Parts: sequence; C-alpha cells; structure tokens
Amino acid sequence: MKNPVERLRDALLAGHPERAALVYTPHNRRYLTEFPSSDGALLVTNEGSYLLQDSRYVEAAGAEAKYCEVLPFTALTESLVELIKKSGVKEVLLEVGKLAYSVADKFRREFEAVGVNVVLDTTLDNQLIAMRQIKSPEEIKKMEDAQAITDATFTHILGMLKEGVTEREIAIEIEFHMRKLGAECNAFDPIVVFGPNSSKPHGVPGDRKLQPGDFVTMDTGARKAGYNSDMTRTVAYGYATDDMKKLYNKVLEAHMAVIDACKPGVKCCDMDKVARDIIDAEYPGLFGHGLGHGVGFEIHEWPRFSRLDETLTEVGMVITDEPGIYVPGKYGVRIEDMLLITEDGCRTLTGSPKELIIV
Amino acid sequence: MKNPVERLRDALLAGHPERAALVYTPHNRRYLTEFPSSDGALLVTNEGSYLLQDSRYVEAAGAEAKYCEVLPFTALTESLVELIKKSGVKEVLLEVGKLAYSVADKFRREFEAVGVNVVLDTTLDNQLIAMRQIKSPEEIKKMEDAQAITDATFTHILGMLKEGVTEREIAIEIEFHMRKLGAECNAFDPIVVFGPNSSKPHGVPGDRKLQPGDFVTMDTGARKAGYNSDMTRTVAYGYATDDMKKLYNKVLEAHMAVIDACKPGVKCCDMDKVARDIIDAEYPGLFGHGLGHGVGFEIHEWPRFSRLDETLTEVGMVITDEPGIYVPGKYGVRIEDMLLITEDGCRTLTGSPKELIIV
Repeated sequence: MKNPVERLRDALLAGHPERAALVYTPHNRRYLTEFPSSDGALLVTNEGSYLLQDSRYVEAAGAEAKYCEVLPFTALTESLVELIKKSGVKEVLLEVGKLAYSVADKFRREFEAVGVNVVLDTTLDNQLIAMRQIKSPEEIKKMEDAQAITDATFTHILGMLKEGVTEREIAIEIEFHMRKLGAECNAFDPIVVFGPNSSKPHGVPGDRKLQPGDFVTMDTGARKAGYNSDMTRTVAYGYATDDMKKLYNKVLEAHMAVIDACKPGVKCCDMDKVARDIIDAEYPGLFGHGLGHGVGFEIHEWPRFSRLDETLTEVGMVITDEPGIYVPGKYGVRIEDMLLITEDGCRTLTGSPKELIIV
Repeated sequence: MKNPVERLRDALLAGHPERAALVYTPHNRRYLTEFPSSDGALLVTNEGSYLLQDSRYVEAAGAEAKYCEVLPFTALTESLVELIKKSGVKEVLLEVGKLAYSVADKFRREFEAVGVNVVLDTTLDNQLIAMRQIKSPEEIKKMEDAQAITDATFTHILGMLKEGVTEREIAIEIEFHMRKLGAECNAFDPIVVFGPNSSKPHGVPGDRKLQPGDFVTMDTGARKAGYNSDMTRTVAYGYATDDMKKLYNKVLEAHMAVIDACKPGVKCCDMDKVARDIIDAEYPGLFGHGLGHGVGFEIHEWPRFSRLDETLTEVGMVITDEPGIYVPGKYGVRIEDMLLITEDGCRTLTGSPKELIIV
C-alpha cells in the first residue's frame, strides 16, 4: 500500500502539476505524517511534502515525522507563501470542515496576493475522510491495543459493583484504571448509569447509588497512540427480572444480527435497518439513536451506521455496532462493539463477553 | 452589573436596530447563557435573545439557560433563517476566530439568500474576548473553587514523593485526586517532571524515577463548573544544592516582584518585563516563555503577560504569573499563581505555599 501522502497526491494532484493541498487541522496532519502536534501545516505538492513546525516541535518532527520534509517557521502564513512561490504552485486546496474562518480567510488573501488560486470547497476534506475511514493494519493494531485496555478495565470494574457505590465513583475508577493500564487518556468521558438513569443514552454519572435489580450501563473507551476504542456493556446488579432479561436479549439479538450481516459492499443505512427492524418489531420507538459510527483518531468518524448514510462498507473500516432500547423512567440496555470490515464479513475488535452478566 | 447578553447588545447592537449577533462556539454560548452544550446557537437581537438547541438539550436548556428564550431546532440553519426573518434582522455579525469555514460559509449563503448582510470580521470575537477577560464575582468564586481542589491535591501529592516513584505515577495520582475532590476534569494534562526533565517547560510525564537532589516541577489544574485553575510548584526531593536554592529564589523573586507591581492600568508587556529583567540579570536567556496568560473557560485566554501584549490590565482580569528558569540538561524551576487584578493591586487566587519545600 502506498503511504498516505502518496495516496493523497494520487487522488487530488495527479494531472494537475501546479496544484497543492494544504493540510492544517491536527488530526489530518497527524494522519498523513504520523507526527502529533497542536500547531503547524503540511503542504503536499506533486514534487514534495513539507511539514512546517514551530520551534517547540521542529526537532521532534525532524526525528519522527514520516513522508515529509520538516521545515521550521516563525510566521506560518509567510513561510507558506515563500514555499508556494518556490514550488511553482498555482492552486491550493484548503480544508473547510474544521478550519477556522479567520485562518482560511487569511490563507486565501495571502495566497491570492501572490497569484495563487485558492479552492475552498469540500474536495480536500472529503478525500481525507475517504482515506481515514479505511484503517491500515498498523492503525488496527493500535485500536486493538486501546480496546485491550478497555476490556481489562471492564473485567476490573465488575468487582467494584457493590450496593451503594455511586455512578460517579465507578466512572472515576474506570478512568483511573485505564490510565494505570497505559491509556494516554480516556477516549471520552465515561457514561455510567444505574437503574432508571440507564434509560438516558448519554446520561452523566451522578450520585445515584447502586441497588439490586439495577441495570448498569457503561459506555467507555481508552486512547492509545492517538487511537480510540469504544465499548458499551450493560450488566444487572443483584438480579434481573424476566422483563429485563427479555429486553437485554432483544438488544443482543439486534447486535448479533448486524455482526452476521456486515460485510464489504453493504450500505451503512442497511446495517442500521437490520438492528432497527428487530427492535422496532417488539419495542417500537425505543431505539432513538443511530446504530453506530466510525472510530479512529476521533471517537466519531465516518462512516455512520445511520438511516441517512448510504456509504458502502469497505474492508478496513472500523464502525461501532451499538443498538439500544431505552424505556423512559424505567431502564435501558445498550451493547456496543467495534466491528472491523474484513474480506469475508467482519470481525469484532472487542473482547468482553456480551451475554447478560448478573453481578 | 448588566448581564452578559445585555452588555453584548449595548456594545454591538445599540444604534443598529436591524443588527443581530450570532454566537455559535460553545464557550461563548456558555459564557452568555451559563448553559453548556456541544451544539446550538444563540441569536441576540435588539429585542430578544434566542438559544436554539436540539432535542438532546432543549429540556435542560429551558430549565437552566439564562438571559435567553430557548427554542428547539432540528435543522439549525433553517431555524435561524426563520428566526432572522421573523425578527426583522437585516445584518448578522458572525464569529470568525473558531467558527469552521464551512459553517460560516453556509450561514453566509443562507442568510444572504434572504437579503441579510453578513459581517465576517473580528467585531464579535473581539467583543466577546473583551467581555470574557473581565471575570464577575461569580466567575471568580468558581475559579477559587477549582483552585482549592488544585491546592488540596498539591498537599496530598507531597506525601507521595518517594524515591523511585515515576513522573507518570505522580501525574496519574494528581488527575485522580482532583477528580475525587470533585473536579469535573483536569484543566489540562498535568506536567510532572523530575531532575533534568524539569529543564523542559512542557515536558510530558514519563518513566523517570525520583532521586534525591531532583527538582520536581508540577504544573496542574482542576476544572470546576467549566472554569479552570492553573498552578505550578517546584519542590526539591531529598536535598537542594546551593545552586538549586539560588535558582529557586531568583524565580521566586521575579514571581513576587510581579505581584508587587501588578495593578489596574499597567501594560501586560510591562509585567512580563518586571520578571524578565530580574531573571535576565543573572540567568540571561534561560526564561524562554511568556510570563503568563488569562484563565477562564479556557486554560489560555486573553490577555497575555507577554512581550507583545500591550493590553492595559483591568479590575477582574485573572492572569497567571509564572516565571521560570530552565538550565538545559540540568534542571528548571517554575512558580505559578493566578492573579486577580483588584482596585488597589492584585490578589493571588492560589493558596499553596511558595517558599522552597524540600520533601
């Protein structure tokens, strides 16, 4: 496989000898060069690839950044203008999705002042989305490492579920345990909700104390080497009523049906429908969110397993499968794995068990 | 004092009956309405103030958001266009500093399509910066609460400094102690550096083990109710040589000289100079960063105690005073408080001691 800078060049610059792409946002710069930094810019031309970094980063970037030549800057726009003039570039593609208006506008004015055409549409954003949604074997390994921490933390936390413990105490223990196991941080603030609070898909951990008969939903993830993991498990504390078991097993059925159906070349919206049809047949209207989302450097990436996303799945995509049923005021269940699309179907990156555990 | 929405209106809309300000970025929306949400928009007109929120937030916003009427939306731009038409607005000021180009461009196209003039310059950003850099008594109380957690964590951590403990172990203990004391999160990833690593102002905690004769620099902060705290302390482990004591006391002298000099109406760059002159006289070139920065919703706000910032200090600003001396390959010291500018000088919000502690 060609490196990401070469792939970007093939897709956007081939046949346009005087065109360049300017990658400014941190995640996209990191994706292309494997070098993390909060500030800087990457200019990709047909002939070269230049990572501009300030004095804080230039030494480390010189040693670690891939697929580019590292250049120092003190004033970014001025350095870019010089580089553009030197490279004979006459057209520059910019990102628009996350680039601040003031930054884009400054680049435009300064580049146009030296006779360069500036393209401010979604061309570059869309190409980077298309590339980033296909994970390389190295990226998948990092996500598996992140998920291994999440799995080990789930096992650890089961031993902490005792009557009277609060949602907030469990959330803090999850955060702490992931860090001790080597996570660079949490992928997102953990969701830990007990009993009636589990009916809120995005509840914030509070002072609710654990009681027998509570569902416990934990939506958590670790970040490792920049890559996120994302998993949800719901367990019961003390006992589960027949209604609770029935509800749980319906979510599990929907979750497993997606794993069975998922393979390359299916529409993302159809995967959502697989889960939704199963749930709606028995619990209509109680699955209020989309089935899943891509994961990578960002916890929510493309594509989405949602009713609106007609993207065709491809080998190397990593997308969550997270159906849920939420009975207002009563309880809810969600089960979430990260699925890697493979040649012959899909493989879950998640190691934790998913039959109903009664702690 | 008028509420922040009224102050924004007085500053930007008075005398322009058909003008409105559209506040989109989360920190600025939260500043004006005291309601935190990841998505939404606030339209301030001469007659009203309207917070648009989606279904995830609209109920909570209705109960908690201040100085505005809460309206639901499903498609934000469409709802804004309707509201603008209904309000008779003919000109809309947008933010440009953090608003994504694609969002700004969409607003512009859709608003211009209904005959509204769109202003995309720094007018709105600058007004919000000017307002946010003056903290109200309620904001100061929240920052003091955040700092109280940081102070208590510093006291706790002194007892954890034992031979062989690693920077990373101390950093994790800081993070979790703050959470246990009620911080909603860390204000930033803690900097914990031992011995020669303390010569790096922004070192990342690693596997270095604590040894006698090490300086230990800890730059940490807690966030509470959205507001950050920021403190640095350097202590010595086991013993400190005469050179270490001399270096420490020079940093302390510079830090205290700023507290003595700081009052309303002085130029921020002059405060930087107070500290820099003291350090440069004896350790030329070893104080490589600015003296300090505003703190609030964001850990780095305006103004800056830097060589370039000619802002005049005003009552209610909270700015860090954090001189440092860094001897490459050897060690470094930094001492940081948050200073509140008061009528007759300044007051530190930081409670931890700052004479040299030898643990």
